[in-house]
Amino acid sequence: MRCDVLAVGTELLLGQIVDTNSAWLGEQLAANGIDSLVQVKIGDNRRRIANQLTAMLAEADAVIVCGGLGPTHDDVTREAIADVMGATLERDEAVAAVILEMFTSRGRRMAQNNLRQADVPVGAALIAQTRGTAPGLICPVRVGEAEKLVFAVPGVPHEMREMFERAVLPELRRRSDAGSMIVSRVLRTWGESESGLNERLDGVIAELDALGNPTLAFLASGWDGLKIRLTAKAESEAACEVLLDEWEGRVRDVVGELVFGVDDDSMESVVLDMLRTKSLTLGLAESVTGGLVAARLTDIPGASDVLRGSIVSYATEVKQQLLDVPEGPVVSEEAALAMARGASKVLGSDVAMALTGVAGPTEQDGMPVGTLCVAIVWQEGELTRTFRLPGQRQQMRQFSVINSLDLLRRTLSG
Amino acid sequence: MRCDVLAVGTELLLGQIVDTNSAWLGEQLAANGIDSLVQVKIGDNRRRIANQLTAMLAEADAVIVCGGLGPTHDDVTREAIADVMGATLERDEAVAAVILEMFTSRGRRMAQNNLRQADVPVGAALIAQTRGTAPGLICPVRVGEAEKLVFAVPGVPHEMREMFERAVLPELRRRSDAGSMIVSRVLRTWGESESGLNERLDGVIAELDALGNPTLAFLASGWDGLKIRLTAKAESEAACEVLLDEWEGRVRDVVGELVFGVDDDSMESVVLDMLRTKSLTLGLAESVTGGLVAARLTDIPGASDVLRGSIVSYATEVKQQLLDVPEGPVVSEEAALAMARGASKVLGSDVAMALTGVAGPTEQDGMPVGTLCVAIVWQEGELTRTFRLPGQRQQMRQFSVINSLDLLRRTLSG
Repeated sequence: MRCDVLAVGTELLLGQIVDTNSAWLGEQLAANGIDSLVQVKIGDNRRRIANQLTAMLAEADAVIVCGGLGPTHDDVTREAIADVMGATLERDEAVAAVILEMFTSRGRRMAQNNLRQADVPVGAALIAQTRGTAPGLICPVRVGEAEKLVFAVPGVPHEMREMFERAVLPELRRRSDAGSMIVSRVLRTWGESESGLNERLDGVIAELDALGNPTLAFLASGWDGLKIRLTAKAESEAACEVLLDEWEGRVRDVVGELVFGVDDDSMESVVLDMLRTKSLTLGLAESVTGGLVAARLTDIPGASDVLRGSIVSYATEVKQQLLDVPEGPVVSEEAALAMARGASKVLGSDVAMALTGVAGPTEQDGMPVGTLCVAIVWQEGELTRTFRLPGQRQQMRQFSVINSLDLLRRTLSG
Repeated sequence: MRCDVLAVGTELLLGQIVDTNSAWLGEQLAANGIDSLVQVKIGDNRRRIANQLTAMLAEADAVIVCGGLGPTHDDVTREAIADVMGATLERDEAVAAVILEMFTSRGRRMAQNNLRQADVPVGAALIAQTRGTAPGLICPVRVGEAEKLVFAVPGVPHEMREMFERAVLPELRRRSDAGSMIVSRVLRTWGESESGLNERLDGVIAELDALGNPTLAFLASGWDGLKIRLTAKAESEAACEVLLDEWEGRVRDVVGELVFGVDDDSMESVVLDMLRTKSLTLGLAESVTGGLVAARLTDIPGASDVLRGSIVSYATEVKQQLLDVPEGPVVSEEAALAMARGASKVLGSDVAMALTGVAGPTEQDGMPVGTLCVAIVWQEGELTRTFRLPGQRQQMRQFSVINSLDLLRRTLSG
């Protein structure tokens, strides 16, 4: 079974929005043993959408079309799919009534163009709308002897995801052979380059190449580190997991000290879990990262068990008055240490970490852009470290987060 | 001139990395009057890359291929392009020497597979590497009577961007008619739905539809609001700007009070600029957002002129001890007001804003998930406001940032 993806929207081609839908769909399809081999972005142009869809249906068993179902004049996905089906559009009065009711119940007047969302190609089945106002569509298309499928879903990510899980995936699974499962496992690493990992794992890769299953690939994720992805194919999920367990062990034998987590683990979740297990609270003092370390930690539900808070001491006087940092340069290991001691006291935490540095655009205190000084204080001691980080402002700040959290992780694990 | 984009990498199809390169390229190409009408993602498979490239070259004048130039075994872009050219690969000894020298100068031993990056299809020109180790390629391909071009650039975003600006864009501009320019202008709005904006602007849209130039489109950007994009085509950039000025005025006549910025303006940059103009400093106290407001403000260079800092008071005792919040429920307008007064005092700022709320997964203090209480204190007064926000944890926190900053913007502008 092969299901490709077509993302519709001129704004995607012009780069005003990044298409994240097709990546999410690719992940879901792979997890269900369905191949997605080509994913295309195209503009809001009826003829071009129809032509592209026809070309994709020649190769794939199904195509999911995201976007272009809205109420405005540039939403033409419905029309393009009808062209491919050789069908006309008819207004579905039940859908129209639901749309009208949605506005009425909120005490709002409905703009007439909203009713375009009730237009359905003759022969298509509806995916009922729950959020938003546009229903999705399941459209059969005959290609030679085969009946193929076009699914139309909204471009708004949370609406698309809900419809995919409720209606698209069940239909795809029903139609697919469902013979084999594909399961991936990702080992998250920090501290080695791609070619370095590749060389250290050369022997493992040669064995896997000979076997053909599982496969191994490297994924560079910038400031989230390098991922090693193992992908196994077998008759059941359990059989995939057995293969993955074996080869995860083989990889860890070689580069285990670089692996900080698996699959959905992030550096943030791993550090929070370690602190929680040890019943330790954390306090932060942030200058160069301006709250980013705390913001990323608190994106994880349950962070409140561990994190007391963060003193974002952006102004020098705040460092001095609130955290008791002595006068002098504020980008130094000494200043970071004073900040960490101050944060531990002010926030009443068992462990405290402080970050000060230079994100640019210009140097500060004679220190070049990219300098990061980190200090950690805890019951058993204190440590400081200076990093030279690459990149522009945003990249330098994000690298500061993961480098400091990795330092904290290594400190906590002794 | 039409230049389409092919992003290579199985990790893109599997959703382990989101392809942001093609969006960035689309934006650059449009700004230079070059159409990019189809953008495709495909896996690390030599035959499929070659077939896709052949299909794209039938329609486009040029294709930029991103990724698959690295040193590892799954990087096969060079081989696939050579197949399309009908050429063989030859090792470029000068490039090989540069790669070797890069490792030697850092005192590192070079893995042999790095030299694959010196393999070049016969007939291709090199784009010299500056960062990273893989050079880019400019590959002529004859399609019928026409000579078309394939550009190969790395998949790492900063390397891709540097090579595009240095070598790809100049070559494309040299070959294009360069007759007409396309310029877009984006008006950033907050506070109205897409269909509501569409209806209010119905008259303007009808006039533009009749004219055909500029065009108008709406872009939903979730927690960054709705964008209204005007795109003008004319013989020069100046002529485009004249058209855009006229129609921006027409749009603002109708929905001007919702427009908070233009093009690269963000809610963060607009608020910082307003405070800077008034010579006011800002202090924050954050609970539900955990530092996210400060992190987003400090992502803007020069935020230090305005922002004193933020007290991320995640634990209740930190709110009470550091910010003098009275005992009682901490998700309330009263608690937010006490936090803002405390932040103003502790951080010594002219203006202070505080956020407390419930991001979930469960309710707190009897308040449902999605509750946000904001308080602002400044020389001329105090105000509090409660919002009911939609979404899961991450979405609720991001909506909290933009809603609170928009409240601050409206407060500052009287």
